[in-house]
Amino acid sequence: MNIAQIGDQFPDITISTAPEDIICYGFDASGIEVCPSAIIWPNNTADVVKVMKYAYEKEIPVVPRGAGTGMTAGAVPSKGSIVLSFEKMKKIIEIDAENLNVLCEPGVINGKLQRELEWTGFFYPPDPASMNFCTLGGNVAENAGGPRALKYGVTRDYVMEIEAVLPNGEVITTGIKTTKGVVGYDLTRLFTGSEGTLAVFTKIRLKVLPLPEEVITLLAIFRSLESSGDAVTKIISSKIIPRTLEFMDRNAIEAVENFKPIGLPRDAEAVLLIELDGQPSTITREAEKVIALCSKLGAEIRMAKDEFAKNNLWASRRALSPALYHIKPTKINEDIVVPRNKLTEMLRRLRTLSEKSGIAIVNFGHAGDGNIHVNIMVDKADEDEYQRGLGLVEQIFRDTLELGGTISGEHGIGLTKAGYIDMELSERELKIMESIKKVFDPKKILNPGKIFS
Amino acid sequence: MNIAQIGDQFPDITISTAPEDIICYGFDASGIEVCPSAIIWPNNTADVVKVMKYAYEKEIPVVPRGAGTGMTAGAVPSKGSIVLSFEKMKKIIEIDAENLNVLCEPGVINGKLQRELEWTGFFYPPDPASMNFCTLGGNVAENAGGPRALKYGVTRDYVMEIEAVLPNGEVITTGIKTTKGVVGYDLTRLFTGSEGTLAVFTKIRLKVLPLPEEVITLLAIFRSLESSGDAVTKIISSKIIPRTLEFMDRNAIEAVENFKPIGLPRDAEAVLLIELDGQPSTITREAEKVIALCSKLGAEIRMAKDEFAKNNLWASRRALSPALYHIKPTKINEDIVVPRNKLTEMLRRLRTLSEKSGIAIVNFGHAGDGNIHVNIMVDKADEDEYQRGLGLVEQIFRDTLELGGTISGEHGIGLTKAGYIDMELSERELKIMESIKKVFDPKKILNPGKIFS
Repeated sequence: MNIAQIGDQFPDITISTAPEDIICYGFDASGIEVCPSAIIWPNNTADVVKVMKYAYEKEIPVVPRGAGTGMTAGAVPSKGSIVLSFEKMKKIIEIDAENLNVLCEPGVINGKLQRELEWTGFFYPPDPASMNFCTLGGNVAENAGGPRALKYGVTRDYVMEIEAVLPNGEVITTGIKTTKGVVGYDLTRLFTGSEGTLAVFTKIRLKVLPLPEEVITLLAIFRSLESSGDAVTKIISSKIIPRTLEFMDRNAIEAVENFKPIGLPRDAEAVLLIELDGQPSTITREAEKVIALCSKLGAEIRMAKDEFAKNNLWASRRALSPALYHIKPTKINEDIVVPRNKLTEMLRRLRTLSEKSGIAIVNFGHAGDGNIHVNIMVDKADEDEYQRGLGLVEQIFRDTLELGGTISGEHGIGLTKAGYIDMELSERELKIMESIKKVFDPKKILNPGKIFS
Repeated sequence: MNIAQIGDQFPDITISTAPEDIICYGFDASGIEVCPSAIIWPNNTADVVKVMKYAYEKEIPVVPRGAGTGMTAGAVPSKGSIVLSFEKMKKIIEIDAENLNVLCEPGVINGKLQRELEWTGFFYPPDPASMNFCTLGGNVAENAGGPRALKYGVTRDYVMEIEAVLPNGEVITTGIKTTKGVVGYDLTRLFTGSEGTLAVFTKIRLKVLPLPEEVITLLAIFRSLESSGDAVTKIISSKIIPRTLEFMDRNAIEAVENFKPIGLPRDAEAVLLIELDGQPSTITREAEKVIALCSKLGAEIRMAKDEFAKNNLWASRRALSPALYHIKPTKINEDIVVPRNKLTEMLRRLRTLSEKSGIAIVNFGHAGDGNIHVNIMVDKADEDEYQRGLGLVEQIFRDTLELGGTISGEHGIGLTKAGYIDMELSERELKIMESIKKVFDPKKILNPGKIFS
């Protein structure tokens, strides 16, 4: 690609080919680095159309990028690509309180939307751990989840309408402004979770919900891994659906206590962070049931007394991911899901795997959904250890699938899991998906190499 | 097609080419009739595979059929087609109380699943008016809604996994057994609402929820259409989300009182049937708020005192659709949705249209979703009146789209709306959908003529 040409093509759009930008936009949270040829910051849909038309004609790869918080290299550029970065498209265009939805540009930060909504008494349920950095465009591309997904579902359940620019520069609007609609195939849901491989999102309409009146936050500390897994199944089967049911194993507790201590006993085997939301009398009664149930399984219970205590607990939970780097410099991060009642079995298998291999595995995540963030802790500089760590991934995926699970709950496939996707999907299913990709992107210029290896 | 051949091909599968079957399977609730060449009742997935392989080779059209309760001729056969009818595939294979889901064959009747689930303390939220007849396979194909969609969403929100036979006889399983998962494109949601045009469903896994503890049923009777619309917007903006917020206009009230009377005042302009569900103290308080709010808008409120009274109200609501035939022998049935706060405006436009044309229009439906079932009442035998009735449809769709709505909330496109789909979708969007259809069904043998005219 002739870099000088790009600037000439788009005199009104900010473009950089400066080395410092090229480097900064060349990686995401996966740690994988590939430098792009240029970064373009569109101001609006028209700018995206211009760029896509040019790229389509010249067959230049384009990689749409939110905040780069993704774990599977979904936003890592491919060689010679243009990165489309949405920092300038960050307007909350409309908050429609009567119809319970918001219209946003893709660069709006999730946490920013949350704070704006709180003023009006509403909230947007999906709350990925990176919510204070990640963008809605990235959230839709990855079908982001978060702790509250247990009660409220994932991004897919909230996307109503997407304005999207196709690889050839055409603009379409999928979906509707109303909550119901069945006109034609569901392109909105096809785009959600498509990891930037089908179209570039330029406007997103999201459903919002009334804020719950009150939240009770409980911490249940278990001396046995099995009891914590049992507690998860029992809470749900007793017909209580907490908004969050977060899990940390012993290694995760250790990491928290070393990094952002909240006074967890170091000899605990597992912790559940449980939140109930709704009308005060209802959740008080639910909390009593949950406490009784966990106590019977030998847990020690702590209740967060005020907002400060709650925020403290969540700050620790959110700090967990970075805290792990205090154990080892490299984490191989997986994101498996098993049916809820297979959680204990999966955790047991992970423990055995860790003991046998001598490699630390730290587990935490959204236990209510059966979604475990498995962190294999190694040192990349120690080539042997790193390879042994990578070697565990396939076994973990095999166990996950054997228990009826899936190899990714919220992080997506990107580059890092593309080599494993055929463990879960059949050749026929993959071929169908590749044919769908071709319908939208016949020249394969949009986020190439992602999902399909 | 050589009909004798079919029987020889599948000696173990029930097949009929008898005229009485050909006629009975030649229509649905749309009233459109096209006789198929044969009806086949598969016993299992293997049977469906056999039939599809044969049909694919011989290029015979195949029309999958649930109970034929669809309103847009989605299950009406095409000429020379084989109807695949799922009466024999009606097993509830598994109720998984720990993971909150059920695995069913496509011929399971929605209401049957509801009753089985009630024993275990769970429910499956989508509840189309035809729930005592319609099948889950049809529900998924049409992305069925129902009164409870306001709080609980539509079929799309509950489908986890689909085993499907492709037009060429290959079997794939889309989706996952867990609530979360982001591996590859979302084929499950692409199938949901695809109106039998992409694949034949042979197993369906659905999410279920714990039954709410209690339900309060209220009837609010309004002397003005506008006040009823205002009440809908005000209830939702006051952050109460009832599980149902059903609406009937004056003509609908008249039809109910003539057919299955529940003592509604004949001079009422509109009625809202409101249900709140959840924990008793919460919904009691919500009911007080709703009553205060509706009373302020001039409504007279009645509360159903017991199960008998509740069932009575709902029986009337469900009888409404057939009751309309007492007004005129033919109803042209539309299923529009407008943003909730545009409901009053849309109803006003419908009233004006009815007055100007002299044709009765009866409106009822899911007001909370802005989803109005518009019934244009005519006599098909009176050709002039029928044509004038049909002539109103386009104006109604134009008004709907102008107000930011969609031309179908739950009934789908089928045959009857195929001629109007380009009012809502752009040429480019339609082309994309047709290309997706081609990926799955290159020979166009599956439910031909539906969605795309």
